[in-house]
Parts: sequence; C-alpha cells; structure tokens
Amino acid sequence: MPLVRIELKQGKPPQYRRALADGVYQAMRETINVPENDLFVVVTERDADNFIYDRHYGGIDRTDDFVIIQIALRRGRTTEMKQALYRRITQRLGDMPGVLPGDVFVTLVENGPEDWSFGNGDAQYVK
Amino acid sequence: MPLVRIELKQGKPPQYRRALADGVYQAMRETINVPENDLFVVVTERDADNFIYDRHYGGIDRTDDFVIIQIALRRGRTTEMKQALYRRITQRLGDMPGVLPGDVFVTLVENGPEDWSFGNGDAQYVK
Amino acid sequence: MPLVRIELKQGKPPQYRRALADGVYQAMRETINVPENDLFVVVTERDADNFIYDRHYGGIDRTDDFVIIQIALRRGRTTEMKQALYRRITQRLGDMPGVLPGDVFVTLVENGPEDWSFGNGDAQYVK
Repeated sequence: MPLVRIELKQGKPPQYRRALADGVYQAMRETINVPENDLFVVVTERDADNFIYDRHYGGIDRTDDFVIIQIALRRGRTTEMKQALYRRITQRLGDMPGVLPGDVFVTLVENGPEDWSFGNGDAQYVK
Repeated sequence: MPLVRIELKQGKPPQYRRALADGVYQAMRETINVPENDLFVVVTERDADNFIYDRHYGGIDRTDDFVIIQIALRRGRTTEMKQALYRRITQRLGDMPGVLPGDVFVTLVENGPEDWSFGNGDAQYVK
Repeated sequence: MPLVRIELKQGKPPQYRRALADGVYQAMRETINVPENDLFVVVTERDADNFIYDRHYGGIDRTDDFVIIQIALRRGRTTEMKQALYRRITQRLGDMPGVLPGDVFVTLVENGPEDWSFGNGDAQYVK
C-alpha cells in the first residue's frame, strides 16, 4: 500500500506526469512485491521558486526536469530490494517519459502494518 | 502534536474541506489522546490528473470523493488505538461532510518526542 | 540529504520564500552536519482555508505568517543536535525573512541510509 508523492516543475503535460506515476508503480511491482492495482500517487507541479535543489550536489547534474519521489511504505524490504527499486525507477522513467538518470531523486519513509487503512475504517494489514 | 496532510480532488467548497480537517481532529481527540486545540492540518486540492488512485484495489470502491489522510505523530499509540482512530475518522467524515467509507484512506508516520518543535525554537516534548 | 517541505500562507514574494529555504539549509549546515550544497526544498503556498492551525496551542501565539517545516533525514542526530537545529532555524528565520519565533513549527521524520537515492539510481549512502 505505498503512498507515492511526486514533485516536479510545472509545465509538463498530463501524459508526462502520468508516465512518472506509472513508471514508479511498475518499478515497485517489479522489485518490492507491490500487488497489482496498489496504485496511490499524488503529483505536485511546482513553480520554479518553490522547487529548490542543488544542480550538482553529489557530483550529479540536475536539469529543469528534476523529479523528487517520496514513497511511504511498510517496513520489511531489504537493502538489496531498495537498491533494485531505485535502479528500476530510474530505468523506467528514462524510457518513459524520458527523465535523465541524474534527475531522479527517490527517498523512502517506512511504517508498520498497523499504520494503514485503505478504506472502510479497517486496518487491513493487521491480522 | 500531529501534523495532518489531507489530499482530495479540487472542486469542494471551503466548508467541506474544513469538515474534513475537523473530523480528523475530533477523531484524534476521541481515540488517540490528542489534546484540545492541537490542530495542524494542510489540505491539498488536486487536479484529477495529479491524484491517481485505483478505484477498486483491495475490494473497496472509490469515487471522485476519495480522500487521502497522512498523519505524522509521535510513537506510542497501540494497534487498538490506531484501529479505533481509523474507524472514528471514517464515521466522522461519513457524518460530515458525507464521505463514503470506501473513500477514506488513512496512513500514519511516527517519530519521537525529540522530533517536534511547535514554536519558539523549543523541543517541547523533551524533558 | 534532507528533504525539506515548507508550508506557508500564500502572498509572500519569491525572495521571502527563498529566505525560508536558505535559513533552514544554513541552520542544518550549522547544527546537524549537513554537507555543503545538500539543498532540496519544496515550498507550498496555501490558501487560508487549506492551512489550518490553532493560533494559541501550547501557549504560543501564531500569526498569518505561520510556517510549517517538515524535514525527512537519516537517523543519527542526537536530541541535543535536534534542539540546536530548532533554535537555529528559529533564529535564522527571525533574522531573515523576519518570522516571529512563535510562527516557526518544525518536525522531523527519520529513515535509514538505504532509504535515499539522490540520482542515477544509486543508493549513495549504502556502503
């Protein structure tokens, strides 16, 4: 039940933004065991002056197409799975909509099974 | 000192959005020992193409009135308290502004007492 | 590699918002060992009815210039470092752009070194 927050500069068409969401979803499906249709994404388009990032930090070049992806998900994925996730997101967004590898920033925040209710007031992951 | 982030599709009047914030606040008061007036909520109204969610995942039907609620709060609530919170939020938002149970998505992210400063540069929860 | 989210009421000029971002960055540099140019900030300007906060909770007076700062960062800072961070953010934002101490709200959310990829699909903090 990941909740994905995507940030980018405004000016991209809907299909570009949808490709970002779909690419992250597909990468999660492929690398961290996210079930089919478990798709919950909010996208925020930002004015340049509300989207502040260093263009060279860490020896990586960033352009106007920089994207920040913050994913909230349950604990339990290994470091190897997370590394595969980052690689796969970067590959997929490179294919479509065509984001450069240096422009993909991903960060995770984890919680427990008791920290999710995805409808009807139930905590679906609690046994 | 929960910080609440509410996301919904744009097009609802101010009183509808205020009822969402108030309902979450009242439910937190009733179920997880949040003190009176501890109310800090940001609401984001989203274009349809920036608010992407599966309409049937988990066997739950979601409509255009789908709402995502992400709450940052201190560790320490039991699973039972969290379950009561989800039920109560869903009940309250059902009463006012009239959100269907399937349209209420809640997720929590926890931190420690040292992770909050609610004014004046102090970490008020640190003894 | 902190990711900073800043929320304020709309109506402030770009240089005011930039001063908020720069003040938080400088305070992080001074108190919690954030490297030079490690600057990633999103700013959200909100309509009054989407920015809901109690004006007196905790015995602190808040004005229309209230600012919420949520910082995602790696685990490892001590309580003392966090206390210094809150003080320093509050001092810096008081100097520039001139935010009152009661109007500065800060909260942290922590994760691990494996939870960051700041470009090229790598998890740069994993050894």
